[in-house]
Amino acid sequence: MNNLNTTSQKQETITWVGDAQSGHLVLIDQTKLPGELVTIACRDVESVWEAIKMLRVRGAPAIGIAAAYGVVIGLQTLSSDATDEAFDERVNELTDYLANSRPTAVNLFWALDRMRRLALDKTGLSIEEARKKLLAEARDVHEEDREMCRAIGRHGVALLGDVEGVLTHCNAGGLATAEYGTALSVFFTAQDQGQHLHVYVDETRPLLQGARLTAWELMQRGIEATLICDSMAAQVMREGRVQAVITGADRIAANGDSANKIGTYSIAILARAHGIPFYIAAPSSTFDLTLAHGDDIPIEERNPREITHGFGKQTAPDGVQVYNPAFDVTPAEYIDAIITECGVIQPVTEDNIREVLGVV
Amino acid sequence: MNNLNTTSQKQETITWVGDAQSGHLVLIDQTKLPGELVTIACRDVESVWEAIKMLRVRGAPAIGIAAAYGVVIGLQTLSSDATDEAFDERVNELTDYLANSRPTAVNLFWALDRMRRLALDKTGLSIEEARKKLLAEARDVHEEDREMCRAIGRHGVALLGDVEGVLTHCNAGGLATAEYGTALSVFFTAQDQGQHLHVYVDETRPLLQGARLTAWELMQRGIEATLICDSMAAQVMREGRVQAVITGADRIAANGDSANKIGTYSIAILARAHGIPFYIAAPSSTFDLTLAHGDDIPIEERNPREITHGFGKQTAPDGVQVYNPAFDVTPAEYIDAIITECGVIQPVTEDNIREVLGVV
Repeated sequence: MNNLNTTSQKQETITWVGDAQSGHLVLIDQTKLPGELVTIACRDVESVWEAIKMLRVRGAPAIGIAAAYGVVIGLQTLSSDATDEAFDERVNELTDYLANSRPTAVNLFWALDRMRRLALDKTGLSIEEARKKLLAEARDVHEEDREMCRAIGRHGVALLGDVEGVLTHCNAGGLATAEYGTALSVFFTAQDQGQHLHVYVDETRPLLQGARLTAWELMQRGIEATLICDSMAAQVMREGRVQAVITGADRIAANGDSANKIGTYSIAILARAHGIPFYIAAPSSTFDLTLAHGDDIPIEERNPREITHGFGKQTAPDGVQVYNPAFDVTPAEYIDAIITECGVIQPVTEDNIREVLGVV
Repeated sequence: MNNLNTTSQKQETITWVGDAQSGHLVLIDQTKLPGELVTIACRDVESVWEAIKMLRVRGAPAIGIAAAYGVVIGLQTLSSDATDEAFDERVNELTDYLANSRPTAVNLFWALDRMRRLALDKTGLSIEEARKKLLAEARDVHEEDREMCRAIGRHGVALLGDVEGVLTHCNAGGLATAEYGTALSVFFTAQDQGQHLHVYVDETRPLLQGARLTAWELMQRGIEATLICDSMAAQVMREGRVQAVITGADRIAANGDSANKIGTYSIAILARAHGIPFYIAAPSSTFDLTLAHGDDIPIEERNPREITHGFGKQTAPDGVQVYNPAFDVTPAEYIDAIITECGVIQPVTEDNIREVLGVV
């Protein structure tokens, strides 16, 4: 394994290269980290779909950005003299197809809806002009995410206060977003402000996003990080090593129930049992106010081989039954606050959510 | 990987072969399961120590049995005309050395103390006679464990009642003991009595004893088993899939605080949060009544590479800090009952422990 931690290489998680007609998407292949820093070029919509499905690009906000660019790529193969009907049909096909890559993260649907609405409202524009307008919109989604991350960081640091140890689960960092991340943005912003934090990182089975991605991001920025197995979080809390927990989220219902990487619900209960505040950091696009509560959030079940053959080696008997839910839902009552780019929602109630998000 | 689940091969976890003078110990090398069913022969005390240290033999009761035989092996190199002083010195050396292999499991010290006391009280016996007597004692430790497991199973089934789903962590099965195990003995006994159970098995990071050993044992006996990651236990409880949790223990203090594989404390809290009873199954030799409470139990910290290089592949960045406690302590208030061969301790209080164990 190359020691990438010490390289000065700066590769953005998601980059658009070229123009609307013939440009393409470049992604860090996150399945290869931390062993190798490899990028992949997506030049057709199928490879964008595959990258999302296989978690080469992952994290709710990053999936939304990649999918927005995916719509631009998917329209490149449409003839420039296609009819409006053919254009609309292609837009609907593309957005339906990309929405199908992963079922839980709402930012994916949010970004695709935004692209679809703009595309279907192209009155008077040529196909070429519409393509340019859609690339500009995807770039806006991307740039707004960057700004959103910074705002979450500022609000989160104010909420966090004077703590020394924090725990996080999965990866809600720059790799999951355009730049600073959501949960990790709070840590990066604290560092920018001179606050010394020690971050305990759950490895996050089965796909080890904590060990592979979060530990790597923190080390790259010189933030003190200690890796633990998910089963050790309770012991770390009991020993007084952490005074707060912050994770990201993939979808948040109207009442604040939050779907996030499997294991998040467990940590929220453990934090409560130890009197430690549990926070979620997520952009407003993560909220799905059409869902009354978390039971309505569909939970993706993934391949059993992620558990039995995770790392190039079989670790369970042939033919064993496996249950592999990719997410769980943490009920709002276990969440002490939700940190958004619009401000902090605390306590987590439907009224407070609507007030902070500015939704009537 | 060979599909060992379907073989009819019956290999005992621990077997003594031969006589006291020149016999040796045969162990299933549990680090190779479930991929290969390999045995190792220990012909000197160093290889017994290594097998315990490296978890080739593991589980508190099995460690005690292996160490008892280890004392017999260690005395084979002593000259038959050695003085009583040389014999005593060798016995003390051997038992101190073996006790040093792992710090947490009290059954190890219990078995070694038993062998040491008998050895130092060899008045009038020749070295050869003493060796025979010690082998007989090690065989007694072994056989008593077999009986103990069966008794735990009977008491546990009565306590468990009419449940369908249970959860267990790590491996407290036949591989951890002489035959039926402790926690798994309850499941095996239920099966013997015609009760259908569905066992959810935590994979148990970092060394995956649940995935590698418990899933294998359950499948070999035809008990329905579903493997999950440790981080999924809370979700499994929330979905109502399990109505009880049973684990083993490595050391239990006078007040009932119980040290067991890292992650047990976490599950106990989660069980309480879901109104599910949490039980420990352990022989009386697991109790260390010299310790007032769990804070006095030393917790073994193991090699960081178990977490960063666990699956035959590096899964975390070079140089990452790691915290790897092998055990945690579950406070007595989270334990609904302790199932011993002497009966069930419920509620878990110091008085009840002493009464059930018959200790004044």
